[in-house]
Amino acid sequence: MPGKNLNIGMVGYGFMGRAHSNAWRKVSNFFDTGYQPVLKAVAARNRDKAQAFADQWGYESVETDWRRLVERDDIDAIDICTPNDTHAEIAIAAAEAGKMILCEKPIARNPAEAQPMVDAVEKAGVPNTVWYNYRRIPAVTLIKQVVDEGRLGRIFHYRANFLQDWTINPDVPQGGAGTWRLDVDAAGSGVTGDLLAHCIDTALWINGPIASLSAMTETFVKERKHAETGQVQAVGIDDAAAVLARYANGSLGTFESTRYARGHKALYTLEINGEHGSFMWDLHDLNRLDWFDHGAEGRLRGWTTIHVTDGEHPYLGKWWVPGLIIGYEHSFVHQVADFLTGLRDGNFAGPTFRDALETTKVCDAILESGRSGRWVDIRQ
Amino acid sequence: MPGKNLNIGMVGYGFMGRAHSNAWRKVSNFFDTGYQPVLKAVAARNRDKAQAFADQWGYESVETDWRRLVERDDIDAIDICTPNDTHAEIAIAAAEAGKMILCEKPIARNPAEAQPMVDAVEKAGVPNTVWYNYRRIPAVTLIKQVVDEGRLGRIFHYRANFLQDWTINPDVPQGGAGTWRLDVDAAGSGVTGDLLAHCIDTALWINGPIASLSAMTETFVKERKHAETGQVQAVGIDDAAAVLARYANGSLGTFESTRYARGHKALYTLEINGEHGSFMWDLHDLNRLDWFDHGAEGRLRGWTTIHVTDGEHPYLGKWWVPGLIIGYEHSFVHQVADFLTGLRDGNFAGPTFRDALETTKVCDAILESGRSGRWVDIRQ
Amino acid sequence: MPGKNLNIGMVGYGFMGRAHSNAWRKVSNFFDTGYQPVLKAVAARNRDKAQAFADQWGYESVETDWRRLVERDDIDAIDICTPNDTHAEIAIAAAEAGKMILCEKPIARNPAEAQPMVDAVEKAGVPNTVWYNYRRIPAVTLIKQVVDEGRLGRIFHYRANFLQDWTINPDVPQGGAGTWRLDVDAAGSGVTGDLLAHCIDTALWINGPIASLSAMTETFVKERKHAETGQVQAVGIDDAAAVLARYANGSLGTFESTRYARGHKALYTLEINGEHGSFMWDLHDLNRLDWFDHGAEGRLRGWTTIHVTDGEHPYLGKWWVPGLIIGYEHSFVHQVADFLTGLRDGNFAGPTFRDALETTKVCDAILESGRSGRWVDIRQ
Amino acid sequence: MPGKNLNIGMVGYGFMGRAHSNAWRKVSNFFDTGYQPVLKAVAARNRDKAQAFADQWGYESVETDWRRLVERDDIDAIDICTPNDTHAEIAIAAAEAGKMILCEKPIARNPAEAQPMVDAVEKAGVPNTVWYNYRRIPAVTLIKQVVDEGRLGRIFHYRANFLQDWTINPDVPQGGAGTWRLDVDAAGSGVTGDLLAHCIDTALWINGPIASLSAMTETFVKERKHAETGQVQAVGIDDAAAVLARYANGSLGTFESTRYARGHKALYTLEINGEHGSFMWDLHDLNRLDWFDHGAEGRLRGWTTIHVTDGEHPYLGKWWVPGLIIGYEHSFVHQVADFLTGLRDGNFAGPTFRDALETTKVCDAILESGRSGRWVDIRQ
Repeated sequence: MPGKNLNIGMVGYGFMGRAHSNAWRKVSNFFDTGYQPVLKAVAARNRDKAQAFADQWGYESVETDWRRLVERDDIDAIDICTPNDTHAEIAIAAAEAGKMILCEKPIARNPAEAQPMVDAVEKAGVPNTVWYNYRRIPAVTLIKQVVDEGRLGRIFHYRANFLQDWTINPDVPQGGAGTWRLDVDAAGSGVTGDLLAHCIDTALWINGPIASLSAMTETFVKERKHAETGQVQAVGIDDAAAVLARYANGSLGTFESTRYARGHKALYTLEINGEHGSFMWDLHDLNRLDWFDHGAEGRLRGWTTIHVTDGEHPYLGKWWVPGLIIGYEHSFVHQVADFLTGLRDGNFAGPTFRDALETTKVCDAILESGRSGRWVDIRQ
Repeated sequence: MPGKNLNIGMVGYGFMGRAHSNAWRKVSNFFDTGYQPVLKAVAARNRDKAQAFADQWGYESVETDWRRLVERDDIDAIDICTPNDTHAEIAIAAAEAGKMILCEKPIARNPAEAQPMVDAVEKAGVPNTVWYNYRRIPAVTLIKQVVDEGRLGRIFHYRANFLQDWTINPDVPQGGAGTWRLDVDAAGSGVTGDLLAHCIDTALWINGPIASLSAMTETFVKERKHAETGQVQAVGIDDAAAVLARYANGSLGTFESTRYARGHKALYTLEINGEHGSFMWDLHDLNRLDWFDHGAEGRLRGWTTIHVTDGEHPYLGKWWVPGLIIGYEHSFVHQVADFLTGLRDGNFAGPTFRDALETTKVCDAILESGRSGRWVDIRQ
Repeated sequence: MPGKNLNIGMVGYGFMGRAHSNAWRKVSNFFDTGYQPVLKAVAARNRDKAQAFADQWGYESVETDWRRLVERDDIDAIDICTPNDTHAEIAIAAAEAGKMILCEKPIARNPAEAQPMVDAVEKAGVPNTVWYNYRRIPAVTLIKQVVDEGRLGRIFHYRANFLQDWTINPDVPQGGAGTWRLDVDAAGSGVTGDLLAHCIDTALWINGPIASLSAMTETFVKERKHAETGQVQAVGIDDAAAVLARYANGSLGTFESTRYARGHKALYTLEINGEHGSFMWDLHDLNRLDWFDHGAEGRLRGWTTIHVTDGEHPYLGKWWVPGLIIGYEHSFVHQVADFLTGLRDGNFAGPTFRDALETTKVCDAILESGRSGRWVDIRQ
Repeated sequence: MPGKNLNIGMVGYGFMGRAHSNAWRKVSNFFDTGYQPVLKAVAARNRDKAQAFADQWGYESVETDWRRLVERDDIDAIDICTPNDTHAEIAIAAAEAGKMILCEKPIARNPAEAQPMVDAVEKAGVPNTVWYNYRRIPAVTLIKQVVDEGRLGRIFHYRANFLQDWTINPDVPQGGAGTWRLDVDAAGSGVTGDLLAHCIDTALWINGPIASLSAMTETFVKERKHAETGQVQAVGIDDAAAVLARYANGSLGTFESTRYARGHKALYTLEINGEHGSFMWDLHDLNRLDWFDHGAEGRLRGWTTIHVTDGEHPYLGKWWVPGLIIGYEHSFVHQVADFLTGLRDGNFAGPTFRDALETTKVCDAILESGRSGRWVDIRQ
């Protein structure tokens, strides 16, 4: 049943603005959290676009300066969906204004930018989270549960890839509203911050800290036109990155991400191998989870494909009936549901800003190792 | 952008009530139809339950008699989500009151019940549809498009199954709110009307009319307790049905449905084989479509798995980005979007009540052949 | 270790002649059966072709009349690989000559032809088998073992298809050496005897007798040129057949076969659904077996894909190491191994001529029902 | 048709001795090479075991000293199937005796051992090959053909893994006949020489030379009992290895191998991503090849699964009919067929000893980088 109103102020209105808005709107139809989110205002520099977005999603008002939003007394939570280079300033101001903050990932372009954000929210004592939504894909949550129960025994391997192919064409521009992810100034990095960051967040959550790593990075297309100026400029981001890692628990990690893997759209895959069992999962089939139970009867042992749509699976009891799948957007609904329930119960599971800082430290080490060719230790 | 208000009156609040309500609420965030649905009222006999549902979904008001809803001037469209035995009375009254009608499938328990419904909506000239939502799974819509282009050439085979396993346990009761689908009086039939009806609707849509069929039906569990009275009674529904069919276009059809296929939750599978190509699809992986193009280069020919998540795929341009999947519930959003767009443009694609009557005729022939052991002709 | 010599006389040298010869040559390298097959002679009307085959496979001698082969004292077993219309005469003569007989499937064109063959081998008391080789695909054998242990509980459904696409082109001729399978005089029937017969043999073996059935048959291409005469003639075979069946154990069966399912080469699929579990298998991935164990822990329950290549799987201990697959031809090696081991131990598991007669009775009922449109009882 | 006799002398009789013997015995039944291999003699220290192997496979004679075999005038080719530490001495002696040599992979424990072997065969001018059999899996051969045609355009990525799980149990011993692969003295290395060597051979063949690499290696179980002495000793091999690589053509490579990936038996997977298309393949499904053609029609574009069993696929015209699969062992038959055809035509495609030396250089660099933590250049 709907509960106490929670007034949301959204900054930005792009792809993530839509995904988050959808989550805020849907959560109370499916989850009982004690809160009823209210889409109070959206802030964006372009008033017409902001108003169109507000009309489409039902935001009550529009601001053209995010600072105004942060100052408004009728806003409880700031949801940051703008490019990476703007996260720190907005988040720190919001924390100082005592707002809850939900920040799109990665938390910032690098640890140096992220650390003051962590300091600010912790000093202000405001609830905070970063939208690493894949933790809340039910199949991924189920892996976490089973691993935490110790059921896999000693872990030997954790590997994850995130493969795309959308920038192979050298005519794709960089910079601007639609392609800021290719602009190193706005994004901070390429696949490392955009895609590997997801893999790292899940990996740290499920398998614990990474102690050290060695990475290879590459920029395949060296120059691109700027989307707005049309000027040909050097490309500053990493188009591809691959990583060897050692976890604190003694297991080995391998990670790879690229936007040049022809045929793959958003293929985030992960696998964990333990003494007694293994899990495999991928984002293209996000409702399926492959599980190998070494304890099963020998002649009938194999990889079990779990169709993660039963009532006893994480979050699924709130949706439809067994066999009927959910999609990408539901992971955001789950994150909102957990955030609100955590508000009510005082125990939000994360990822917090501090968790996201750790992920960004790993990303930074990847970029550093890619430059130096050396193994890099991760300092906790 | 949101458009003209369209006031919805919902009858019923069960599983389908949730699926439809979600569709009404979401459609304008993603599709520009010229209409803005408004959840005006929900009708159900139990006021507390109706109110709880209204609170969860944001319905403005509650009625305890659907007749009141039908009479209200501020209702534009009646959405019928009640058990099958109630569809006819509600729909006919709504038509007579000049309301648009969206009726959950099957349209009725049998053709005799459905025919007056068709007559009523056609006489009243009100927009009408039956929620055979699977037509609007993007992969299924894509099949329809390619078949309609003639790309498969002469069709030889069309086969479809719908397999479940949830009634194997003889302790599952029949009747009552949660299990009325096992009560022949409320449901009209078992798997034939509940599951095969979906397969038949899609089949008629893609491959045209069925001319004749031979069927086998079975009731594995002969007696069950009634959910409310606890009384053990004979089971009147078909637990399983299998069908041989001949299409008007000369192709052969096979259909099977059961609730006793251990391991399958909602496994609707369909396959069409033509001279030049074939398609296969299943509901458990609804974003995937398997396509065989006989015209492809020989040594590289095979079944292509299309991840139906690109902007050029049906409906997908309105959702996320390539690789990110949608779920079961989206098919309802698409049906609402098409219904509203059809209202605006005067060309709704169906399925109409008349289309659904044809499906019910085929279902009736299945049950008749199951009883008689004879081939039955379908009269158009 | 190689054992006692067993002298083989092969009749025919086509596709099956190669598959059987390979099996005879390989068996002793991998299985210890107590026998060492010796490729003594091959019989075929065309001496040059017979000699070329003998050279390729190492047959010691050649006959141009199978009757000569049957009369030779140095032949222990007659292996019949000729078209279906010749099986009866050869087999009866071989039985009368006291030879063991291994006859390619189907045993004959119809039960009337097969019955005297059964009578002959039983009267002569000679070891006999029909090459329904798919029983000895390890995955299929494993299904049989687990079903026989009662592990699936009550059986509800058994379905099998055999789909091909090689006769869609109307220019494929009928009759002659390469395409006698399209000539009703030589083959007896089309897909029913060629493909469905495999499905039926496996089905009867795993799920017991079929009590009654209803079938639909179709000939899509009505006329074809004869391969040798070039004359256009009516096609007498069934191009496609679909079947509804009731088993003696109360379960329901569905079967379908066609040579017009574009995209499928030799797609024999089977599935059995029991109260406690289910199996699915297909020939294109013959080393994989899908198993659903309803007794598994709920949240981790699903379809387990068994890679049937471990030492504890049927026959696999004799081949390579886990993970390394075997192919189609190995099923023939297994049949030879079991036949020879059965000779040694006096307990060959079948299928015997009598078993194959039962399969042919079912095939005959399919053709009869296809003509009459009526349910047909199978007389044991 | 069988041709000129080629007398084979086999050294060793283990797993590979069986795989090679099977290939020699089968090749002339399926391929016309101009040669008829004759299993002349097998050499092994234990006469009883050698004799048993000779009986099982039809070798005409037995030697207990491989030197005797090398000296025999009636031996044309020496096939080396003994542990890695013995390859060099046998091969050099065989070359000096003017024998053709077929040596099991890896060619030797390290480049220092392999270089004199290459020198010896090149000086002697004897035909030579190393059994990197996976090049001759038809699906892998097909990749090579299409890549060589330039159809993929610029290559961005090549990744390969080889995952097993059979040494997780610390009770598995090291050393001795069955487990010499865990003994660093006999094997030279662990997964690098045993498994990654396969991946590297295929990679160099398809994608050209590797310029430099960075690797991580690990030994999870530090001590094991010796299989024969029972003494607990330090484990000297690498249990797992992961590699970042840069190819000479500018593409990036990632490789991983382990014997601690619970659930995987012999999962060799490879993927190549080019500008215009990609391929994926794995050994567990070796007859399937996944192909992405970016040039296909957009809405119907996807990953095509090629069932590599048609007559137009590499080698398949010699086996059965479309849809019927072959197995692991066939790759050895293909290598023999190509070797013999190459003898006849004077153009054997490899891998030669020299090719295998290049693979061993890469393996050596992996081990060196694993120790040093530094990038290592590969000297051609």
